[in-house]
Amino acid sequence: MEPNSTSALARLAAVQNHLTIQPCFQRHAIHNDQPTGPADLARERANASFKVEDMTEVLLRGKENVEAMALAFQMIQRDPDLRMRAGHHHDLTRAEDREQTMRQIARTIELRKQIKDPRLQQALFTAMSFYSESFSMRIYVHEMLFKQAVTLFGTSEQQDQWLADIEAWRVIGCFAMTELGTSSNLRGLETTSTYDRATNEWVIHSPTLTSTKWWIGMAGETATHTVAICQTIVDGENHGINWFIVPLRDPKTGRLLPGVTAGDIGHKSARQGLDNGWIQFTSVRIPRQNMMMKWASMTPEGEFTPSPNPVLSYATLIPERFTLLGGSQVILSQSLTIAVRYGAVRRQGNHDEQILDYQTHYTSLMPGVAFIYALNIVDHELMTKWNEVAGYAQTDAGAFMREIPDQHGVSAGFKGAMSWYATEVLENCRRACGGHAYSSYNAIAGLIGDYGVMTTGGGDNAARYLITTLKWAQEGQEVLGSVSYLNDYKKVLSTSKTTLQDSRDLLHHDFVIDVLTWASAKKATEMGTILAEAGKTGFDEAWNTNQTELVRLADVHSWRYFLILYQQGINRHKHTPVYEALRKMGQLMSTFVLQKHLDLFLEEGYFDGSHAKMVRQLFLEQCKDLRKDAIPLIDAWAIPDFILKAPIGKYDGNIYPAYFGTVTAAQKSYEAPAYWHKYAHPMLNAKKSCKC
Amino acid sequence: MEPNSTSALARLAAVQNHLTIQPCFQRHAIHNDQPTGPADLARERANASFKVEDMTEVLLRGKENVEAMALAFQMIQRDPDLRMRAGHHHDLTRAEDREQTMRQIARTIELRKQIKDPRLQQALFTAMSFYSESFSMRIYVHEMLFKQAVTLFGTSEQQDQWLADIEAWRVIGCFAMTELGTSSNLRGLETTSTYDRATNEWVIHSPTLTSTKWWIGMAGETATHTVAICQTIVDGENHGINWFIVPLRDPKTGRLLPGVTAGDIGHKSARQGLDNGWIQFTSVRIPRQNMMMKWASMTPEGEFTPSPNPVLSYATLIPERFTLLGGSQVILSQSLTIAVRYGAVRRQGNHDEQILDYQTHYTSLMPGVAFIYALNIVDHELMTKWNEVAGYAQTDAGAFMREIPDQHGVSAGFKGAMSWYATEVLENCRRACGGHAYSSYNAIAGLIGDYGVMTTGGGDNAARYLITTLKWAQEGQEVLGSVSYLNDYKKVLSTSKTTLQDSRDLLHHDFVIDVLTWASAKKATEMGTILAEAGKTGFDEAWNTNQTELVRLADVHSWRYFLILYQQGINRHKHTPVYEALRKMGQLMSTFVLQKHLDLFLEEGYFDGSHAKMVRQLFLEQCKDLRKDAIPLIDAWAIPDFILKAPIGKYDGNIYPAYFGTVTAAQKSYEAPAYWHKYAHPMLNAKKSCKC
Repeated sequence: MEPNSTSALARLAAVQNHLTIQPCFQRHAIHNDQPTGPADLARERANASFKVEDMTEVLLRGKENVEAMALAFQMIQRDPDLRMRAGHHHDLTRAEDREQTMRQIARTIELRKQIKDPRLQQALFTAMSFYSESFSMRIYVHEMLFKQAVTLFGTSEQQDQWLADIEAWRVIGCFAMTELGTSSNLRGLETTSTYDRATNEWVIHSPTLTSTKWWIGMAGETATHTVAICQTIVDGENHGINWFIVPLRDPKTGRLLPGVTAGDIGHKSARQGLDNGWIQFTSVRIPRQNMMMKWASMTPEGEFTPSPNPVLSYATLIPERFTLLGGSQVILSQSLTIAVRYGAVRRQGNHDEQILDYQTHYTSLMPGVAFIYALNIVDHELMTKWNEVAGYAQTDAGAFMREIPDQHGVSAGFKGAMSWYATEVLENCRRACGGHAYSSYNAIAGLIGDYGVMTTGGGDNAARYLITTLKWAQEGQEVLGSVSYLNDYKKVLSTSKTTLQDSRDLLHHDFVIDVLTWASAKKATEMGTILAEAGKTGFDEAWNTNQTELVRLADVHSWRYFLILYQQGINRHKHTPVYEALRKMGQLMSTFVLQKHLDLFLEEGYFDGSHAKMVRQLFLEQCKDLRKDAIPLIDAWAIPDFILKAPIGKYDGNIYPAYFGTVTAAQKSYEAPAYWHKYAHPMLNAKKSCKC
Repeated sequence: MEPNSTSALARLAAVQNHLTIQPCFQRHAIHNDQPTGPADLARERANASFKVEDMTEVLLRGKENVEAMALAFQMIQRDPDLRMRAGHHHDLTRAEDREQTMRQIARTIELRKQIKDPRLQQALFTAMSFYSESFSMRIYVHEMLFKQAVTLFGTSEQQDQWLADIEAWRVIGCFAMTELGTSSNLRGLETTSTYDRATNEWVIHSPTLTSTKWWIGMAGETATHTVAICQTIVDGENHGINWFIVPLRDPKTGRLLPGVTAGDIGHKSARQGLDNGWIQFTSVRIPRQNMMMKWASMTPEGEFTPSPNPVLSYATLIPERFTLLGGSQVILSQSLTIAVRYGAVRRQGNHDEQILDYQTHYTSLMPGVAFIYALNIVDHELMTKWNEVAGYAQTDAGAFMREIPDQHGVSAGFKGAMSWYATEVLENCRRACGGHAYSSYNAIAGLIGDYGVMTTGGGDNAARYLITTLKWAQEGQEVLGSVSYLNDYKKVLSTSKTTLQDSRDLLHHDFVIDVLTWASAKKATEMGTILAEAGKTGFDEAWNTNQTELVRLADVHSWRYFLILYQQGINRHKHTPVYEALRKMGQLMSTFVLQKHLDLFLEEGYFDGSHAKMVRQLFLEQCKDLRKDAIPLIDAWAIPDFILKAPIGKYDGNIYPAYFGTVTAAQKSYEAPAYWHKYAHPMLNAKKSCKC
């Protein structure tokens, strides 16, 4: 990993040579070789309808945070242990990438001890998360998943025992949930924790191959501890799943402890700097106190009390799912920065147009731009609420248990709906860069790989929550939160046709929400009736026969609530100079959602053809309008070039020399490679008459 | 790359150890550790509605081809130069991957000389293309792109001069079309070929940085020659683009020739075994005869005759675009084999169901299965036609020029429409495997990366062709081929509502085609009117304002013709025992296309809500019905496990030991890595009181 300075210099010289010989080409040029990109971007920036700095303040929530982020980026760019060293990130071996990531972690933890301003501490972690997805995931595993298992499920004594060590990284924790044979289906997992009354210990055991804990971040090479979710066996009886802290490696030597077998998961589609691993436990003994005992508990006398509600054991899934909104912002904002800037710089066609001016181009990218803003705003709303709910775990168990179901429902629905669309946005970005996205040096391919870890279904769970709460509402119980509209389902369904007259109606938030409320209530009651008629015995089959429609229902429901939270969020910025731009993006997202489900409104006769055409037309106009602010909207995310690592997305728009320079710097030599002499030379020089 | 036999043996021992200790786990198992996969797949196979061998014969077109493929796979698996060596494919460095690919090429060419049966020769190349996308692309660049430039654009003397060397790989050719600044927009490319009357030579020159030839397969390290497409400058006048053969490297040494600068494109999202490269020409002189002169020509006396039709110079784009259908089959059939088998083996849920029985699961995969069959059948129809047309280039220039436009239109439309759906199928496959698709060892992530090279838009060009031919039809000219329905556009549009009464109507090929004909003619005339009204000066702007609808039009039109070609193709298999299965897949594809464009039929009032529900319901039923044959339909593609390289897609269904074995074999050691001591140890062992 250390740069070989001779070859690095040679490469640099080669690059400079390539760049400096360009001007002399000009003489023969039939096209002007002066780059048009910088002027294009300058013009786009001059025409911005708002001040970029104002928007950045909204995205980062205040001037102080903006300053902290700017300083954090500077710290990264200058610190030799934080910044990526010689050679391109994508040309590192897996071992080098692992080392680099751990070096960055160690340095960040060192820095955190020195930094007194908590804002800057946070900014440094955020900035590093934009810089490296492997870093981000390592931090996330230890500081979110491992730590939250202690804060959500541990007693205050247990928190006293563990939290200080976790915060100082005197332990490195991982999160052993997934198993080889059972992924998200937690009830079916096989690892057991069996209480041994003779010694007051839990015996952790992996009974089968499929019970191997799988994909566990940092289990491959680095974690010293894990929280493992296990079936809890007491006196031969299974009391369901609970969380146990199990030491994995000796912190002095890094060697695996007896009974623990753990290894590396090997090559993945991305995030090679993170050591995903697998773990098998063979009769590993841990003290009684290593069970997380806030909800379930085992007294020193051997008295076991199960959790009041099994759903509590899955509560870590909620912040895990909500992370999708933050993680998606990091990945999508970078991809869109690259694709939008490239679209504004690249010229093609009969009149050498900026390709971003093509309708199919801006309609594929601009809803994505609005989407990342919506993710930012909605994420903040959700996190504010979740922190409140998570706080109840310490202060008000009753409130905690009351709030958990809606948090489950919302997080599952959002994970499904938002990750699907995010994947589409990434694919749009990839295509918007043409062939150049195929080069690893333009980052998008890597970002798509990184995103892969975030996309698994969730829509089905959200539909279950909807159907259940609808039943409650039909029975006269008041339902709360994301499903509160079900309380009035009868009134909602008393109309059967939209009152839409003019496309301007679609600019009103409440109007759009009413359309989506109708569609969601309509589908929910239709499904509810079918499932009720199927009865208890026929339920699972009826569910499966209607699963496609149930997922569609969850999608409509989730987007509806997403739009509501967005509006709620931007209302907090009503008096800022960028409110108008935020509102426009919300309007575009609304039309986008309507267009996404046009077939449903048409099919149910709620819309007719003229309504559909109104929606489509408005969508095109809104995209075209927002396209004018494309570059400032992207600039406001303030992602420095060295973080982006994508020459075609450079801030100054002078992309080709940078791209060419990156590619030539990666070239080792211009000589024929050894294999050429071995395999190409004999073919090329075979005699023509040779019939061998 | 050579296996280190000591460590390989050690790794093997580690794997075997892991596998053999499994039985003793059983004692403690709460779940049975006996794999259910083999029994599941056996049952699926026993219930097949057709004989798999019969279907394989259809896919490969005859028993003799099936036998040749079986032998070819055996040759690959046994030949130490063809098969991949120690270590997993995804754990190779780029240099190792390059060497492996060239070794495979050299061996295949050697074998071709020995193999007397042309069927087996072909089978070996096809089998290798399934085995390695890098191999496949290297072969494709030389034997398709480079060679076709000679056969389509070269005179018979030029063919005599080059073809024998090409076939024996005494030259290695690449295809220099794309430039850094202008990708598919050939008219805008910048490389010049200027005629020097003093020496009767062409002077090839890259005037600007953006004129650098970019992405050129095999230009990075291996090609000795290229065909380069250049602006043809004679006596200061630009005569448009033509093709020129330019030597790049000395075949004795592999060194770049004077004036040629070429280098490697570096890390890409896939196909690391292919040396994509870039080329800059600095006043490179080539003889007059190196211009491909079938259509344009330069006499020894210096008389230049331009091509009769500039479109001819783009004719290589046609087979290049059609390759999408073949390439998609290779990649999608492997992804679907993995995803479908995994879906049948993996059990989850309340009743431990096969996940493939979930409605959302089989509806996402089964249309993909039908699609690869359709690609296979349609590809054959297209290739038969294209070979006929390409033959005219030698025998009947008039016929060649008459047929070329429809070939352009069809290939552009199919490239757009089919590549979009193929991308969706791949994403469905990825999600269908849950987290396990994120492991490189399960192949899907790599296949998605490989596919990236195939997806760029094409829909816009197809719409242009449609609008032009509609205008001809409206002027009374008869139009042919894919657009022939435009001749009757008035009659087609005399109805405005479907006659659909019963979902059984939708099982009739002609009925579905009529619906799509109506929609396509309706949209085409609507767009035609708008564009005609815009006039010549307003055309480009009107085009852009309606681009989204034009792309939708091209999609409907392309799928319509795709379904027609499929029906035409399966009619050739009417008397085979698998015709019924082929017909069912065609019916599912038809319903799929209708569902895809439901919003259009609804919006135009051609369908009402009840029609839409009929389509949706039929789609669900057809997917469920086809799911019964999922495994046999996949088995018929007959892709051996060693080709798939994906333990979760294993033929025998015993996936977990194989998957675990692959992962543990990639593990280098179970000791802490060096970086652990450097960066984790200091944090873990920091004193608690330390405030440093």
